[in-house]
Amino acid sequence: MNTISLLTDFGDKDNFVGVMKAVILNINPQAKIIDLCHNVKPQDIMEAAFLLKSSFKYFPKATVHLVVVDPGVGSRRRKILVETKNYYFVAPDNGVLSPSLEAEEAEGIVEITKDEYFLRPVSDTFHGRDIFAPVAAWLSLGKGIDAFGKRIKVIKRLILSKPKSLRNKLVGEVVYIDCFGNLVTNITRSAFEGFIRGSGFKICIQEETIHKISRSYQEVRKNKPLAVFDSFGNLEISIAQANAKECLSAAKGTTVQITKNRL
Amino acid sequence: MNTISLLTDFGDKDNFVGVMKAVILNINPQAKIIDLCHNVKPQDIMEAAFLLKSSFKYFPKATVHLVVVDPGVGSRRRKILVETKNYYFVAPDNGVLSPSLEAEEAEGIVEITKDEYFLRPVSDTFHGRDIFAPVAAWLSLGKGIDAFGKRIKVIKRLILSKPKSLRNKLVGEVVYIDCFGNLVTNITRSAFEGFIRGSGFKICIQEETIHKISRSYQEVRKNKPLAVFDSFGNLEISIAQANAKECLSAAKGTTVQITKNRL
Amino acid sequence: MNTISLLTDFGDKDNFVGVMKAVILNINPQAKIIDLCHNVKPQDIMEAAFLLKSSFKYFPKATVHLVVVDPGVGSRRRKILVETKNYYFVAPDNGVLSPSLEAEEAEGIVEITKDEYFLRPVSDTFHGRDIFAPVAAWLSLGKGIDAFGKRIKVIKRLILSKPKSLRNKLVGEVVYIDCFGNLVTNITRSAFEGFIRGSGFKICIQEETIHKISRSYQEVRKNKPLAVFDSFGNLEISIAQANAKECLSAAKGTTVQITKNRL
Repeated sequence: MNTISLLTDFGDKDNFVGVMKAVILNINPQAKIIDLCHNVKPQDIMEAAFLLKSSFKYFPKATVHLVVVDPGVGSRRRKILVETKNYYFVAPDNGVLSPSLEAEEAEGIVEITKDEYFLRPVSDTFHGRDIFAPVAAWLSLGKGIDAFGKRIKVIKRLILSKPKSLRNKLVGEVVYIDCFGNLVTNITRSAFEGFIRGSGFKICIQEETIHKISRSYQEVRKNKPLAVFDSFGNLEISIAQANAKECLSAAKGTTVQITKNRL
Repeated sequence: MNTISLLTDFGDKDNFVGVMKAVILNINPQAKIIDLCHNVKPQDIMEAAFLLKSSFKYFPKATVHLVVVDPGVGSRRRKILVETKNYYFVAPDNGVLSPSLEAEEAEGIVEITKDEYFLRPVSDTFHGRDIFAPVAAWLSLGKGIDAFGKRIKVIKRLILSKPKSLRNKLVGEVVYIDCFGNLVTNITRSAFEGFIRGSGFKICIQEETIHKISRSYQEVRKNKPLAVFDSFGNLEISIAQANAKECLSAAKGTTVQITKNRL
Repeated sequence: MNTISLLTDFGDKDNFVGVMKAVILNINPQAKIIDLCHNVKPQDIMEAAFLLKSSFKYFPKATVHLVVVDPGVGSRRRKILVETKNYYFVAPDNGVLSPSLEAEEAEGIVEITKDEYFLRPVSDTFHGRDIFAPVAAWLSLGKGIDAFGKRIKVIKRLILSKPKSLRNKLVGEVVYIDCFGNLVTNITRSAFEGFIRGSGFKICIQEETIHKISRSYQEVRKNKPLAVFDSFGNLEISIAQANAKECLSAAKGTTVQITKNRL
């Protein structure tokens, strides 16, 4: 019960992440701190929620997932921690946890208020260091969630976009672009298969049309577009041995349309 | 006594940091290595000194702070280690430690010369790997500082710029810009308050004028400038929900002027 | 026997590296995971091979070196692990290990096929997570190499370019450029010295001519070119206190020519 994952938008230019780790080790010298990602687009709660939802299940049981993507720092937004069957989550109450909690039900939610666990004085601009990191460290030591404040029932929800079904079309969008330029869509394998049900189909994005699902990037000739279900179960549009984002001038929000052949 | 912090300008493109960590683990398999920051502007001793001074106190007692921002590598600049009440510091003698040692007095300074602790052969271009990393690792194992060379009294000093007071003006400058584009100045909270002493004031930077200190980024409408004391105690100029560096065309060295209202 | 080094082209924008570490810790909670480098140019097996060969020897004995630069993921390329006297290596069979194995002889090679060690279901696009990370974790726990598949004898070889000797010329090339813009060539110290044998020489790159080997970057005035043997034993072309890549408009593949003075 010593693993803490970190997900922030702090990048790697500054000392912010290093100082948070220092604070954690000061409280729990045995903590194993894993960088999940620090390059979330600044203040992009949606992106952080997507990455957390895709990743949290790979960690050891009892990992404390610490998320600091916090455009509301210093405002009256609450600070929360959530216990599920397998994990703990610590984050600002801005919806960043809600997609993960659809997959892993909350068993207890606490509003973090007990300042005896905070680093004092608490700044108004860096709760990651002064509140979230110490709370995560104490949790990783086995402190129960009720030590940190009162139970609450309702937290802010954030809805990740879902594909829309319109007669013989399923219309989704690009929700994440990885460092290779692959375009990850909000169309999951189950949504796709439930819609297609064995029919023929075409996938259209920008000017390109794709007629099948490949199993890997290798099935298609260089510079040709392809569609795969990525390793996290989402439909992904790629260009073989090239950067789909650039080749297709795509961005987050770009429409991806599946058209089912009429029978 | 196993934590080692790393502060370098090696970036993350190469194998330099990974190899330094390998060398450390070879000597102390129990070492806990924390990346404080590796994206110091290349060879910018001032920036490294600023980051170290802001950060070192958050680490557990007995942490070895290892700094390799070393434009003089291979020259006759000395290599030093410093013991303070709470920490160890290992660095080239180029002034990078001096701002930290104003806050945490040196109890012993040693010029590192005993090459039995070095990785042999010692290269002339990578003392981080061949000298500093092994010395830090041995220190983290509890080796006393006198093992590494002779005591010295005087090390190179580097003076971080300080704001200047001119009649009813306090003139400071931007000394650091974080990844969000926030402009960190050399005006500390105590310098500001000692100067203002309860008077009204205005803060001028580039074409903008700010009339109050906010507690957080949230107090001001989007795209409006604001001033806060940041989480490390420095006056910081921001633009609400935007990038102040870009919006204000500011850079390190940009003047920030506080004018006190005449009574 | 708990250290695992990671070398990938996954960058730091995504959750790929964090998730691989999670998978490792799930299997071996005591693993010490060291990032060797994650910014290999995407799918550049040559660059990864060069970095691995330069770095692996600095790690503690029994380190598992895990390399995921894998343009062939999902194709029929094999997955291999190699045991040498001092280390383990886990990688796709694309040649990335071969330069390292010239320096550290393979004592056993196994094709990884036993899927009881894989993360299920195995994706076709992220073998780093589903195959390589779990195998590395099990190896770090002391599992013998024969558990993972059958022994094989021959693996793919990749030849790093070597300098060519033509009468009184030795013609090499830039094979790596570090974050400071230093140009690392494929001319090793021993190749250089074996060619020169005490004669005078000149080194030509782009429009510049250099007449001596410096011991460090400090020996030459600012903005002047210099040649050193870098800390990994390769001839390196630099510009004093500047960026040689930019100043010389050099790139990987740029020719570096040593001309020996006729006696």
